[in-house]
Amino acid sequence: MKLFIANKNYSTWSLRGWLVLRGFDIDFEEIELSLFTDEFYDELKKYSGAAKVPMLVDNGVPVWESLAICEYVNEQYLQGKGWPENAADRAKARAISSEMHAGFGGVRSEMPMNIRGRRKITPSETCLKDVQRIDDIWAEQMEAFADKGGYLFGEFSIADAMYAPIALRFLTYGVQLSEKAQIYADNILANAAVQQWVEESKQDLSVVPEDEAGIEINAYA
Amino acid sequence: MKLFIANKNYSTWSLRGWLVLRGFDIDFEEIELSLFTDEFYDELKKYSGAAKVPMLVDNGVPVWESLAICEYVNEQYLQGKGWPENAADRAKARAISSEMHAGFGGVRSEMPMNIRGRRKITPSETCLKDVQRIDDIWAEQMEAFADKGGYLFGEFSIADAMYAPIALRFLTYGVQLSEKAQIYADNILANAAVQQWVEESKQDLSVVPEDEAGIEINAYA
Ligand SMILES: N[C@@H](CCC(=O)N[C@@H](CS)C(=O)NCC(=O)O)C(=O)O
Ligand SMILES: N[C@@H](CCC(=O)N[C@@H](CS)C(=O)NCC(=O)O)C(=O)O
Repeated sequence: MKLFIANKNYSTWSLRGWLVLRGFDIDFEEIELSLFTDEFYDELKKYSGAAKVPMLVDNGVPVWESLAICEYVNEQYLQGKGWPENAADRAKARAISSEMHAGFGGVRSEMPMNIRGRRKITPSETCLKDVQRIDDIWAEQMEAFADKGGYLFGEFSIADAMYAPIALRFLTYGVQLSEKAQIYADNILANAAVQQWVEESKQDLSVVPEDEAGIEINAYA
Repeated sequence: MKLFIANKNYSTWSLRGWLVLRGFDIDFEEIELSLFTDEFYDELKKYSGAAKVPMLVDNGVPVWESLAICEYVNEQYLQGKGWPENAADRAKARAISSEMHAGFGGVRSEMPMNIRGRRKITPSETCLKDVQRIDDIWAEQMEAFADKGGYLFGEFSIADAMYAPIALRFLTYGVQLSEKAQIYADNILANAAVQQWVEESKQDLSVVPEDEAGIEINAYA
C-alpha cells in the first residue's frame, strides 16, 4: 500500500490521509511529491483525473479524497474501529468530519498551514466564525470525552485525523481558544503520529512560495 | 425519522439528503424551512451548531452534512447497500462523492441551482474545469455501467444522490456535455425520485433573491 502526499510543512490534506494510517499503526509506503510541479500531476494522473493528494494506492486500487481514504481504511484495515462504536457518536463523528472536509473556507484560505511559520493576521468575519465553530466542536467533545482518552470521541478516531491540521494552523497564527477547546488542541498536538509528522516537516525544507506570504518567523530558526 | 430541508427550487444539499432516503424508498417526514430566515436557524440550532440543511433527526439522534447522512442511512437502513458491493467500486464511489462534497466550487458559485430558471452565463476557467471533471467522471462511469443499470455504478447508489443536483444545474445553464456524460445526465434526470423533487419544486413558489440574479426565463411560465 502506498500513499502519495505533498510537502509536509504545508499539505493539510496529506496529513489527514497520512494520520489515518500512521495514527492506527498501519504499514504503508509514503511517496512525497512537491505541490504544483509537473511531476506531481504526471504521477497522480496515472491513478485519477482528480490529481490531488492524498492518494492511496492499495493493491492497484486508487483511492483519493481524504474522507474516502478514511472510510476505505476503516473498512479494509480497521474492522470499523476508525469511527466510534456507538451509533450516535459515530454519526456525530462523521458529521463533524464532513464539516471539516467541505467547510471552514475562511480558516483554510486565511490561515494556510505552515508548520514552521509564525504569523499575526487580522482574520475576516468569515474566518472568525469558522474558528468559533471549531472551538465549539472541540469544547463540546472535551466536555464529554476529556477524561475518556482526551480525543474528540475518547480514543483516537478518524475525526481526530480530520481536525489535527487545524491545531497546527492555530499554533502558527496564535489563535486563542476557550479553555476546553485548548485542552483538545494540546492533546492532539501531543499525539505521537502528529509529532512524527511535525518532526519530519522540519526535515522537509522544500518551499511553496504560495503559502509563505506574510510569514514572519521560522519557529525553528 | 424527520429530514429538515430548504426550498426545493434552490437547495442542492437538501436534495442530496432527501434523495438518499426517497431514492431507496425509506419512509421519513419532511420539514421544509425557508433559507436565510430566523425560523431556519432557530429550528436547526436545536439540533446542531452547524445549523445547515439537510439535517436528519432519527430517534432523537441529529445527523447533519449530506455525506454523513448518507453514511448513516447506509449503515442503519440499507445494510451497506447504499454503496456498490465491490470494494474497488465502493472506494471510487466514495472518492467521487467526496469530490462533490468538498469541491466544484466554480460550478457551485457560478451555476446556483434554480430548477425552474434558465440562464446563459459566461463561465470562468475554474467553472469550466469543474464541468470538464464532472463530464469525465460521468463519461467514465457510463463507459463501464451504461448497460448495467445506467447509474454511476449500475444500480442507483449514494454517488447518484450526490451528483443529481448537478444535472439539474446543467439543464438551467444549458451546459453541453460529451455524448457519454449526457447519457448519465438523462438517466439521473429520469429517475423517479428526482422527478418527484422537480414536480414538488414547481409547487414551491418561495423565492430566494440571492439565487435569482440573472435568471431570465422561468421554464414553467
Ligand atoms: N478534498 C480533497 C482536497 C485535497 C487537496 O486539495 N489537496 C491539495 C494539497 S493539500 C492538492 O492536491 N492540491 C493540488 C491541486 O489542487 O492542484 C481531499 O479531501 O483530499
Ligand atoms: N456541506 C454541507 C452543505 C450544506 C449547506 O450548505 N446547505 C445550505 C442549503 S443548500 C444551507 O443550509 N445554507 C444555510 C447557511 O449556510 O446559512 C452538506 O453537505 O450538507
